[in-house]
Amino acid sequence: MISEKMKEYVENGSAIRAMFEEGKQMAKEVGEENVYDFSLGNPNVEPPEEVQEAILDIVQTEDPMMLHGYMSNSGYEDVREAIADSINKRFETKLSGKNIVMTVGAAGGLNVILKTLLNPGEEVIVFAPFFGEYRFYVNNYDGVLKIVPPNTETFQPDLETFEKMVTSKTKVVIVNSPNNPTGVVYSEETIKKMAEILRKKQKEYGTDIYLISDEPYRELVYGEIEVPYLTKYYENTIVGYSYSKSLSLPGERIGYLVIPDEAADSEAILDGANVATRILGFVNAPSLQQRVIKRCLDAKCDVSYYNRNREFLYEGLKEAGFSCIKPEGAFYLFVKSPVEEEKVFCEAAKKYHILIVPGSSFACPGYVRIAYCVSYETIQKAMPYFKELAKEFGL
Amino acid sequence: MISEKMKEYVENGSAIRAMFEEGKQMAKEVGEENVYDFSLGNPNVEPPEEVQEAILDIVQTEDPMMLHGYMSNSGYEDVREAIADSINKRFETKLSGKNIVMTVGAAGGLNVILKTLLNPGEEVIVFAPFFGEYRFYVNNYDGVLKIVPPNTETFQPDLETFEKMVTSKTKVVIVNSPNNPTGVVYSEETIKKMAEILRKKQKEYGTDIYLISDEPYRELVYGEIEVPYLTKYYENTIVGYSYSKSLSLPGERIGYLVIPDEAADSEAILDGANVATRILGFVNAPSLQQRVIKRCLDAKCDVSYYNRNREFLYEGLKEAGFSCIKPEGAFYLFVKSPVEEEKVFCEAAKKYHILIVPGSSFACPGYVRIAYCVSYETIQKAMPYFKELAKEFGL
Repeated sequence: MISEKMKEYVENGSAIRAMFEEGKQMAKEVGEENVYDFSLGNPNVEPPEEVQEAILDIVQTEDPMMLHGYMSNSGYEDVREAIADSINKRFETKLSGKNIVMTVGAAGGLNVILKTLLNPGEEVIVFAPFFGEYRFYVNNYDGVLKIVPPNTETFQPDLETFEKMVTSKTKVVIVNSPNNPTGVVYSEETIKKMAEILRKKQKEYGTDIYLISDEPYRELVYGEIEVPYLTKYYENTIVGYSYSKSLSLPGERIGYLVIPDEAADSEAILDGANVATRILGFVNAPSLQQRVIKRCLDAKCDVSYYNRNREFLYEGLKEAGFSCIKPEGAFYLFVKSPVEEEKVFCEAAKKYHILIVPGSSFACPGYVRIAYCVSYETIQKAMPYFKELAKEFGL
Repeated sequence: MISEKMKEYVENGSAIRAMFEEGKQMAKEVGEENVYDFSLGNPNVEPPEEVQEAILDIVQTEDPMMLHGYMSNSGYEDVREAIADSINKRFETKLSGKNIVMTVGAAGGLNVILKTLLNPGEEVIVFAPFFGEYRFYVNNYDGVLKIVPPNTETFQPDLETFEKMVTSKTKVVIVNSPNNPTGVVYSEETIKKMAEILRKKQKEYGTDIYLISDEPYRELVYGEIEVPYLTKYYENTIVGYSYSKSLSLPGERIGYLVIPDEAADSEAILDGANVATRILGFVNAPSLQQRVIKRCLDAKCDVSYYNRNREFLYEGLKEAGFSCIKPEGAFYLFVKSPVEEEKVFCEAAKKYHILIVPGSSFACPGYVRIAYCVSYETIQKAMPYFKELAKEFGL
């Protein structure tokens, strides 16, 4: 018999992953080209060529024992130094290698930092809509998730409600910008106000509240948008990064945490993250990919590809009568469902072999997430069906 | 402030990892060639050339989007099929791809399966001496670790005591053969008796007790030794495997779990392991390495290298007056400390820049672990110092 908790998880499943599996099944039945799978954030842009070049060169020139061997649990020192330098150059921070902990993707990093910080019963605040996996990550360490309801006007965090929800038990606040599922970038104004509230509350309660900035989508922004680097606005900030989207390497599981010196107890957190990486069974981020990253710090996948998808999909859906705010980053559209029960809408879409994720997976029912990290052709072919759907729901 | 638990962990540290860091520091001071670091199981044999060939070919011929992208959390289906076939061929099992879950090394696999199985308070039995990290893995899921004291005659499990320690709360038994830290291979007789006891106890309590066979050292055996494949002796067996040692890829974090159909509730366990892989933040085993494994199923690092080390070190230490049973597998010698407080002996060894791990890290004080996955020259150069040490302790 499996554990009670896991039984529940298996039964409820992850809507997103369940759909991924469903999509694979559908593809077997009607052919892959006839399934319009907008359900998963699986990049559809090839990794930049620097990645392949790096792998080929590293494997042929670096010492295989070093390349495939153990290193410190926090990662190769030279890789961490190089990442710190690169962040310093881009964001005028003052990091050194020791502030970087290499992780098994952003998901691994979040687990490492939550394991490090949370005592059972301590509270973690998130802003709806949010990446549903946070529920599990917080639950893994017996934290208590507190959800700030969505502000469906702008999808910026509702800071008034947030302020009321911070308590003496609040240990962590997680933000994710550019946001999954909305594509919204939290503005500098939002971040400044949030920092102010956090400082005030820290003082009021005599506690440290850590702001975890989960930013796998940092590089995926469109136009002139700037994504603020949060360590510069609030001392107790920890950044979680991943190369899954920026280099199209989601399967490789490579990312890092930034734990700056300014954060309270930063030494202990760094030591703790090193230990957590080990005892959670990650041991270290995959070694070859660490070495690849060092050589690809300035590489970036072709964002214009996603931008083209974004423009086309956004305009098409608007034309069809759907409503949705235009995303500034990531590769998701968060569209208002034409019926309150958005699952009804998602089910209807399946008739056309369109797979989209209900907003309730992100604690924001009444909306659906459409991931446009697919081929342009997929969107082109799906568009008539979206229009059919719109008609069906009276738009 | 970090969590209370993590604070304790950081303070106590891992003796093994602490020594690894200490060794690096020592190397900076006296030069790497003058440090005899026997503390860590970091393979010193190059990966077989098939690994490099596979990486080069895969990167140049396989679709990069598939190669670096997401797949099912349990891994690529074709890779899992290939592994199942390979195990079937070697051990006459009847596995299919769905019985295999790809993991981030054996450490990742153990965390996944313990997360899947354990309710808080359920008991996990291990046999001293055992890999100290099990303590953390069990604690991560609020399991209760029960340690069967060592049988220092043979270092086979003490099954009489074991039988008395199985209770209605026993959910898991972990065995590790070839064993870290002793190098002992559990005999077929041991396994048969253990299976008998487990069956009897399952019946007595009306429970399922899962035997987890943690076998990263399966391929590292010397002479004609056979390592029994445990699923054939006991239905409720789950195997955890890693390529860290067999292909010298510890930094790459690649391994798998075998969850056979014969295991009670195997479907639920497979589903649970899939979910646990996701929600613990692994998401999936590193994708490129999964594809490499598929092409390297028959490859193996050069075991004769370790054997030469084993023979030389074993004979040398015996000659110096130390006592130790001759290991049949893995790359460790478990040597009786010449003083009861083996930490005193380990400290004395540091004077000669010899790093070895106290047996208390493996719940077996009075012994020390010497990892001989080092260069032959390291052992040659260290031997005179071992002899000095022996004299110092009156051997």
